Amino acid sequence: MNFLMETLQVIVMSIYYNMEAVVRLFIPPKNKNVTGEIVLITGAGSGIGRLLAEKFAPLGVSLVLWDINQEGMEETSRLVQEKGATKVHYYLCDCSDKSEVYRVADKVKREVGDVSILINNAGIVTGRKFMDAPDSLIEKTFEVNTMAHFWTYKAFLPAMTANNHGHLVSIASSAGLIGVNGLADYCASKFAAIGFAESVALELLATGKDGVKTTIVCPFFINTGMFDGCNTKWPLLLPILDPDYVANKIIEAILTDQVYLLLPRTMYFIIGLKNSLRWKQAALLGKYLGAFENPEHLLYPPSLGFCWGCIWELSTLWMLSKDASRRWSREEKKRDNILCNISASKEINSACHVSVFVSLFTCFILVYNSF
Amino acid sequence: MNFLMETLQVIVMSIYYNMEAVVRLFIPPKNKNVTGEIVLITGAGSGIGRLLAEKFAPLGVSLVLWDINQEGMEETSRLVQEKGATKVHYYLCDCSDKSEVYRVADKVKREVGDVSILINNAGIVTGRKFMDAPDSLIEKTFEVNTMAHFWTYKAFLPAMTANNHGHLVSIASSAGLIGVNGLADYCASKFAAIGFAESVALELLATGKDGVKTTIVCPFFINTGMFDGCNTKWPLLLPILDPDYVANKIIEAILTDQVYLLLPRTMYFIIGLKNSLRWKQAALLGKYLGAFENPEHLLYPPSLGFCWGCIWELSTLWMLSKDASRRWSREEKKRDNILCNISASKEINSACHVSVFVSLFTCFILVYNSF
Repeated sequence: MNFLMETLQVIVMSIYYNMEAVVRLFIPPKNKNVTGEIVLITGAGSGIGRLLAEKFAPLGVSLVLWDINQEGMEETSRLVQEKGATKVHYYLCDCSDKSEVYRVADKVKREVGDVSILINNAGIVTGRKFMDAPDSLIEKTFEVNTMAHFWTYKAFLPAMTANNHGHLVSIASSAGLIGVNGLADYCASKFAAIGFAESVALELLATGKDGVKTTIVCPFFINTGMFDGCNTKWPLLLPILDPDYVANKIIEAILTDQVYLLLPRTMYFIIGLKNSLRWKQAALLGKYLGAFENPEHLLYPPSLGFCWGCIWELSTLWMLSKDASRRWSREEKKRDNILCNISASKEINSACHVSVFVSLFTCFILVYNSF
Repeated sequence: MNFLMETLQVIVMSIYYNMEAVVRLFIPPKNKNVTGEIVLITGAGSGIGRLLAEKFAPLGVSLVLWDINQEGMEETSRLVQEKGATKVHYYLCDCSDKSEVYRVADKVKREVGDVSILINNAGIVTGRKFMDAPDSLIEKTFEVNTMAHFWTYKAFLPAMTANNHGHLVSIASSAGLIGVNGLADYCASKFAAIGFAESVALELLATGKDGVKTTIVCPFFINTGMFDGCNTKWPLLLPILDPDYVANKIIEAILTDQVYLLLPRTMYFIIGLKNSLRWKQAALLGKYLGAFENPEHLLYPPSLGFCWGCIWELSTLWMLSKDASRRWSREEKKRDNILCNISASKEINSACHVSVFVSLFTCFILVYNSF
C-alpha cells in the first residue's frame, strides 16, 4: 500500500470512529453475550472482586474465585449462588507467590477448563510514606499488584490466543496514572500494571489476535475499606466512589469491550490534561485541592491536582458561549437593519479574537511545555 | 486561609508560573552550581551512563560509578579523568540484587560520603514478545529497572532529606508513558519507575523537603546499542536519538531542576494528546506509523502512535491561520470602503465559526471520550 492510500485509509477510518463515537453517545453499544464463559476473578473474597462476581452471577458464566481469604470466598460463593450462579468454583491462592499462581492455574484448567475472562483484581496497599514502608511490604505490593498479572497472563493467555477469543481485565487505579503523595509503592505497582496491560493489548492487536479484548480500569478511591480514612477536598469533582457503582461500570465496560475505564468521569479530563500543565502549576494546584493535607494520614486525593485543567477548560467554554451569544444577538440586529455598522462588525471581530486566542492558547501551552 | 484567599493565591501564582515560563523561552534559567556534589551514576560502564559521567567530569563533582561491567567502568573512569574529573570512585554492583545495592551503598557512604545527586540509569531490556519472555528475564527487568530505584532511594534519600539538599534523577523511557508492542515487561518496569519517582517527588514537596529535586527523563529509543535493530517509520517526527544529544539534555535538565524531560520534543505533543484519542483511533494510527511492522524484530516505535494528535493540532493551526488571514484582508477592504457590506460581515462570521468550531471540537473530544 502506498503512502497516499495508507494516509487516506487512516483519515477515513478515523472519521468513521469519530462518527461511531458520536452515535454511541445516543445509542449505547449492545452488550456481548457471555453465557458459557469461564470467568476468573482474583481477590474475589471481598470488595470489588465480590461485587463483580455477584454481577456476573446471573449472566450464565462459570465463576472461578481466587482469594487468600477462605471465609470471604465462601461468603462470595454463597452470595453468587443466591444471585443465580450455578457453576461456582473457589480456590485458595496467594497471588504474591508465582509458583502458587501457576499451580492453582493448572488446577483450574484441569477442573474447570480454559479461563476466557480473566479479571486481575487482587490488590494490596502499604499505605505508608516511602521511607517508612518496610522492604517486604514494598515487594509484596509489587508481587500482588503487578507480577501476579504477568503470571496469570502466562497461564491463561495461550488458550485465549489459540481460540482468538477472551478478555483480559486489569483492575488498576487512578493512582496508576498520576503519582500520589504517600503511596509511592502502590502507584509504581499500578503504573506498571497499566503499562503491562496496554503493551500486551497492542501485542495482541499486532499479531492479529483481535478476538482477545482488554479492559483497563482506573478508578479513584473506592469506599471498600481499602482506603479507609482517605478523604477528598472537592467531593463534587473527585468523589470517593461507591463500590456498587464501580462494579456496574466495570461490567458494562467488559460487556462492551471498552479498553479504558476511568472513574469518576472527571478523571478523563484530569488525565487528558495532565501533561498540558507545568510541574510547578500542577503541584500548586495539588496543594490547593488538598493533596498535601492530613499529614497524620497517608491517603490523599491524587496529588497532581490537574483539575486546574478542568477550570481552564470550563472558562474556555464560558468565553466561547459568551462570545457566541454576543454574535447571535448581533446577527438578529443585522436582520433588522440590513446595512450593518462598523461597531457591530468590530464586536464580531473581537468575539472572533477571543476564540482564536483560546485555540492558540491551547496550542501554545503544549508548545511552551516542550522547552 | 479561607476559600477566596486560597483560590486567589492559586490563580496569581499560576499566572506567575506561566509568565515565568514565557520569559524562560527567551532567557534560559541559570545552571546551578554542582561543585563538591557527590554524583552516583548506576550503569556507568557504557551508553548514557558513561556519557553522563563524562559531562559531569569538568563540573568539579565527586563521581561514583556503578556497573556490573568492571572493564566498562574502568574505561569510563579513564575517560572522565581525561575530561578533568579528579575524584572518581567505581564499584562493581549488580543492581538486580537488593542486598548488594545496600552493601555497596554503605561502602560508598563510608568511603566517599553522602550521595547528593543520584542518577538511576542502569536498565535492561528483554526484547521478546510477552509469551516468549522467560520469567527469570521478566523478574530481572523489574529488579534492575524498577526495584533498584526503591533500594537506592532507601539508601541515599535519608541524607538528602536531612540536609534538604539533593537531586534524584530517574532515567526512564518514553516506553514508560506509552505501551509498546513487544516490550510488555520493559514498559511495565518503566511505567513503574515513573510512577515511583513522581510519587516520591510529591511526598518530598508535601513534607516541605523542596531542596531535594527530582528529574524524570523519558527519551524515545537512543542509538546506544540497547535498541539495535529498532527503526522508526517517521524519523522526522520520532527520530532515533543521538546519545550525546540525550546526555546533554539530561545534564541541562539536572542543572536547571527540570522535573520532566521528554525527548525528542514531539514526545510532549504525543503524550499530551495521548488521552484525547479513542483507543481504536490510537491503534489505527499506531499501525499507520509503523508500530506493528517488522514482526521478525521486537522493537518498534511507540505503538500508540498518538502522533495523530499532532496532525490534528497542526490542521487546527492551519485552519486558524487561514481564517486569520481571511479576516485581515477583509479588515483592509473595510478601511477602503467605510460602509461594510453584508457579504463581508458574513465572511467574518464564517471565519469566526471555524475557530469557534475548532475550540468546541477540542472540548468535545475530551467530553465524548468520557462516555
